[in-house]
Amino acid sequence: MSDAARNHAEAVEQANTAFYEAMERGDFEEISELWLDDSHGDISCVHPGWPVLTGRGEVLRSYALIMANTDYIQFFLTDVKVSLAGDTALVTCTENILSGGPAEDGADLGPLVGQLVVATNVFRRTADGWRIWSHHGSPVLAETGEEEADENPS
Amino acid sequence: MSDAARNHAEAVEQANTAFYEAMERGDFEEISELWLDDSHGDISCVHPGWPVLTGRGEVLRSYALIMANTDYIQFFLTDVKVSLAGDTALVTCTENILSGGPAEDGADLGPLVGQLVVATNVFRRTADGWRIWSHHGSPVLAETGEEEADENPS
Repeated sequence: MSDAARNHAEAVEQANTAFYEAMERGDFEEISELWLDDSHGDISCVHPGWPVLTGRGEVLRSYALIMANTDYIQFFLTDVKVSLAGDTALVTCTENILSGGPAEDGADLGPLVGQLVVATNVFRRTADGWRIWSHHGSPVLAETGEEEADENPS
Repeated sequence: MSDAARNHAEAVEQANTAFYEAMERGDFEEISELWLDDSHGDISCVHPGWPVLTGRGEVLRSYALIMANTDYIQFFLTDVKVSLAGDTALVTCTENILSGGPAEDGADLGPLVGQLVVATNVFRRTADGWRIWSHHGSPVLAETGEEEADENPS
């Protein structure tokens, strides 16, 4: 890997980390900035179990709703892999999520829930740095992967 | 959209269709050709409910296993959207899947199962045409999308 490619890979991984840290802080402004703007074409987003959302309107509205319903969320990222092609980068990672909804009946925090999600995040390099073109997150339902091919035909 | 961009978008949609038709035919050679080769860096693949598979070895092995366990599969693609950036293209689509496993007890075909899956497919343009860099498919668990933000924190 060349020095330039290594620098790009580091910058992409930083942008990927910044994305999850912004979610942890509930920082909607930062999330909004990290997604590619309209002048670069349509962004798309799939939250685990959701249909596809397309365009900044739908995507950012989903983050506003998720943040409104999440009092606490923490991402422990593992298996982060970056693949580069010019001004586009593909990141895959495992999101080990711990989250809690709004408290009920005067409690400090709702019950904490653990979730195992894998994500494919596609970034594009712009004058302002690497920006998210696509995020696709999905629940990991099988532990074993390849051995369970017969359960998961696509 | 310029003529060149329109031609690219059509070629990408054809490559996307070819990918699903190869799955329907159980054509492993064609699947293998449609995925980007090693000289272009790591490919990645997430089947619905699976962890991330990285590299041609893991990815193609998973298709061989899926095909060995699938006697019948048909994809009805809807909501196909193409977003282009130079030599990279992002396709999102809904895979309405009808599939059947091997027959048991002398029957002609195992029971047919319907599945609703959404996919994000990333393609790169090579000298041989558009090739798959990443496929991420996930089950659609909620019908309503945005209204269920509280259930899906990522």
